[in-house]
Amino acid sequence: MTKAINFQVDPTKYRHWRVEYDGAVARLIMDVDENGGLFDGYELKLNSYDLGVDIELADIVQRMRFEHPEVGAIVMQSGKEKVFCAGANIKMLGGAAHAHKVNFCKFTNETRNTFEAAGAESGQHYLAAVKGACAGGGYELALACDEIYMTDDGTTSVALPEVPLLAVLPGTGGLTRVTDKRKVRRDLADVFCSVEEGIKGNRAKDWQLVDEVIANSKFDDFVSERAQSIADEAKTRKDVAGIKLNPIYRRFHDDGSISYSAVEVDIDRGNGVATITLNGPDEEAPASVEVQRELSDQAWILRLARELDDVILHLRFNELEIGVLVFKTQGDPKRVAAHEALMLNSRADDWFSNEICLYWKRVLKRIDMTSRSLVALVENGSCFTGILAELLFSVDRSYMMEGDFEEDNRPVASIKLTHANFGPFLMSNDLTRLTTRFLGTPEKVDEAQQEIGGELEAYDAERLGLVTFAYDDLDWEDEVRIFLEERASFSPDALTAMEANLRFAGPETMETRIFGRLTAWQNWVFQRPNAVGENGALQRYGTGKRGEYDKNRV
Amino acid sequence: MTKAINFQVDPTKYRHWRVEYDGAVARLIMDVDENGGLFDGYELKLNSYDLGVDIELADIVQRMRFEHPEVGAIVMQSGKEKVFCAGANIKMLGGAAHAHKVNFCKFTNETRNTFEAAGAESGQHYLAAVKGACAGGGYELALACDEIYMTDDGTTSVALPEVPLLAVLPGTGGLTRVTDKRKVRRDLADVFCSVEEGIKGNRAKDWQLVDEVIANSKFDDFVSERAQSIADEAKTRKDVAGIKLNPIYRRFHDDGSISYSAVEVDIDRGNGVATITLNGPDEEAPASVEVQRELSDQAWILRLARELDDVILHLRFNELEIGVLVFKTQGDPKRVAAHEALMLNSRADDWFSNEICLYWKRVLKRIDMTSRSLVALVENGSCFTGILAELLFSVDRSYMMEGDFEEDNRPVASIKLTHANFGPFLMSNDLTRLTTRFLGTPEKVDEAQQEIGGELEAYDAERLGLVTFAYDDLDWEDEVRIFLEERASFSPDALTAMEANLRFAGPETMETRIFGRLTAWQNWVFQRPNAVGENGALQRYGTGKRGEYDKNRV
Repeated sequence: MTKAINFQVDPTKYRHWRVEYDGAVARLIMDVDENGGLFDGYELKLNSYDLGVDIELADIVQRMRFEHPEVGAIVMQSGKEKVFCAGANIKMLGGAAHAHKVNFCKFTNETRNTFEAAGAESGQHYLAAVKGACAGGGYELALACDEIYMTDDGTTSVALPEVPLLAVLPGTGGLTRVTDKRKVRRDLADVFCSVEEGIKGNRAKDWQLVDEVIANSKFDDFVSERAQSIADEAKTRKDVAGIKLNPIYRRFHDDGSISYSAVEVDIDRGNGVATITLNGPDEEAPASVEVQRELSDQAWILRLARELDDVILHLRFNELEIGVLVFKTQGDPKRVAAHEALMLNSRADDWFSNEICLYWKRVLKRIDMTSRSLVALVENGSCFTGILAELLFSVDRSYMMEGDFEEDNRPVASIKLTHANFGPFLMSNDLTRLTTRFLGTPEKVDEAQQEIGGELEAYDAERLGLVTFAYDDLDWEDEVRIFLEERASFSPDALTAMEANLRFAGPETMETRIFGRLTAWQNWVFQRPNAVGENGALQRYGTGKRGEYDKNRV
Repeated sequence: MTKAINFQVDPTKYRHWRVEYDGAVARLIMDVDENGGLFDGYELKLNSYDLGVDIELADIVQRMRFEHPEVGAIVMQSGKEKVFCAGANIKMLGGAAHAHKVNFCKFTNETRNTFEAAGAESGQHYLAAVKGACAGGGYELALACDEIYMTDDGTTSVALPEVPLLAVLPGTGGLTRVTDKRKVRRDLADVFCSVEEGIKGNRAKDWQLVDEVIANSKFDDFVSERAQSIADEAKTRKDVAGIKLNPIYRRFHDDGSISYSAVEVDIDRGNGVATITLNGPDEEAPASVEVQRELSDQAWILRLARELDDVILHLRFNELEIGVLVFKTQGDPKRVAAHEALMLNSRADDWFSNEICLYWKRVLKRIDMTSRSLVALVENGSCFTGILAELLFSVDRSYMMEGDFEEDNRPVASIKLTHANFGPFLMSNDLTRLTTRFLGTPEKVDEAQQEIGGELEAYDAERLGLVTFAYDDLDWEDEVRIFLEERASFSPDALTAMEANLRFAGPETMETRIFGRLTAWQNWVFQRPNAVGENGALQRYGTGKRGEYDKNRV
């Protein structure tokens, strides 16, 4: 599994999904092409999925929000007889390297979260219409929907058979959503997760595993009516037309560096560092939301979000030895502020501004969840303003230039806070990044808020606690170099685990529990011989032999 | 490391700690005997600790509450020059099996939590007086104290050097307490956890790593005064005398079964099942708190707690292939209720009742945290009443006998709820077990509360959702047998991870974060070659060579 994975896809290339639009209701039909696996060595039987299937799904959810703002209900259903979805493909999992398994789970988790976000934030409600076996990752897909309907045809069931069958967890949110979203009683959840064949009929409803169980003869009508009614009540705007998401501009260079329209990525393989430079807008801010909508996917603020999102996914999957992501910005802070202000000020009334804003929220969350050391360098000429300043509070550490630098004629480094830093971009713990940062000194949040709009140079940024360190011309280069070398000398695993603990202080949410507790346990299981060893359950799956287990309890 | 570990110890046997009592202030002096390791192959240099050191510490904290209720401040300090505590012994960790590492961390975590519980619940405040190097687990000991004082002698520092030095996490609550208890800014926490030599002087206070930094010449006086002042204000009763905790009655049999005074443990090695039978009281309840205090450690309700606690620890460490713990009770429900009522009704006024009650809270939490499948069998003649009924809501599943059973003359199985089930015994998520159980149907908690005092037979228990399944004479034996065989056929790792996710629905607390997120990540790291492989950091520690790391990020 070494070929580069491409996260850019569009409907003309889908192999596994069809979407049928009918006014405010869309049908999302899963019909996985058995021979369309992203890698060789497995067939995607029974609507099982691999990363390629999920990349298409993520694309659909994203396009639904930008291209089809009129849609208020999306019915997720199977295009195959007798099976809704059999979950992640086991042969793929069995053959995948540990890092791919972990990255795959993270991406699928992020995609499931976008279902719920679409419902909660944009009134686009995903509904699962389950006919046929709905097992493992298949049921986890359904769990991520706002409602689950199941037909009562004598064979259809929902199941989480991972523990008995595969010696791994239902790790794509399954365990967490069963207990925390659907609030299934814990002993019934224990039974449910131990029953290979799953639960069907009314018992599934009694146990809160599904919302409705409907006689098979009435199922299709029920789903159609319910979807229409949810769409009618959804807070989407049926009278607006979406904007098209065209392919992003992206050029890979031989050394691994990448050029986008507003982002540059440089790779330093020696230290395992990728430097991601975000460029501020070349043009003045659009004069109005109408102009912004005409700019469509070329509006700087949307373009940048899409490119940044792609960078993160690319680095996560295709550059495993890059342990540190360095964020830089270059550009005019005032211009960034103006572009952002249009978006923020109009988001209550303009669906497009609102969707750009919500997309930034997802991109920033994706950065928070990226298991690389994250660093920001606030250099002269930079524009860490508003949404770009959020990066400073997302990273593990930040360094800022202080005072004059020889032969550097760029404007002196400054940071500009805006309203973007005090509300709209909540982390997965449901706090702003500044609130999380100042959990022990909440007065520092107020203090920072007083400085909105100011150009905060190093002295002020340090005083306000907005950066970790500020260095002058004498020390800057050495300090940054020493830090990067030091980071490169540490165990990548220890850093991954440390960062996963330090980044999310404060309250937990279902989302942080999925990425914290559930994912960490799954990663542990993915290392255990009982699951992944030669005679482990994942390797033996399909051979007719069960896994051979070391009986020691840990 | 195969010799049986004994958790029963008393002050005459301490090798690593001294306690000096002076009125309401106690001095807890760590002075680890280098040659007193629990196992061979390592020396406990620099006040480093292994499980044996921690077993003594846990004993001290426990005795402080029962034997020294007059103490309001406990100063934890080092008996050695130049070092406070160097943390867990690395050679011990390097040589320990995965399961021992994990169990060791869990026990040390539970002990650290008892520091905080002692302060919050009983007004016994632990204070760390740090002189000399305080690193890793040493700083985690200090973090668990209510306050940390550090001398400013030019060399004393606090440090969490695990990531740079050992490629593992500060996993005994370190990362979580830094961010969530001391609320250190996350980027400063990142720096702190990367600096091998630690942080000293005023910077440690500025970063909130310690509460006070005091000139070395004034340090001892400062600590004495502060301890006295905290003890004076503590809500402990200076005028009461404690009760002595004598050795518990315990007999091991050749087949691994154990007899205690009120508990029997049977071992079925074929299915990996330990059956723990808790026997109700033989005597009527004490007539008054005075009589109960005369009974001292022989009061049934305290005796049972101590024995049950010992069973759990013994099975966790010494019986790794026992994957299922079955809880049974036998006895008179009315008598259990009467003993319990004395404790519950008098706990506001009687320190001894209160401490027994709080001890039950800790024992029940220890059961929640035990990574074995937990099952309760409600058989005829049983007494799942009040605190014993809590076991039903702590286990993963429960089975109850329904109706008449041939040749069984014991009273028909019933459950009796009391006030114990609705408040005093919070789980680590700060909810009662019933509230956690009925997170999705809170009205079921109210419904159950209406039934306080009633003898609920199988029909009612099922209706109220108090048991998972009820079976009659025809099915009982088969169903229980099939379940136990099924459980024995699953991967122990998958079960551990599944149960860790299903048991703690609802809100998270610092405690659940330590046992969930932090522990799960540490367990993962404990499996990674970068830490534990032949060339990993733990193996290479002390050789002068750093660990050799696979640079792939996961």
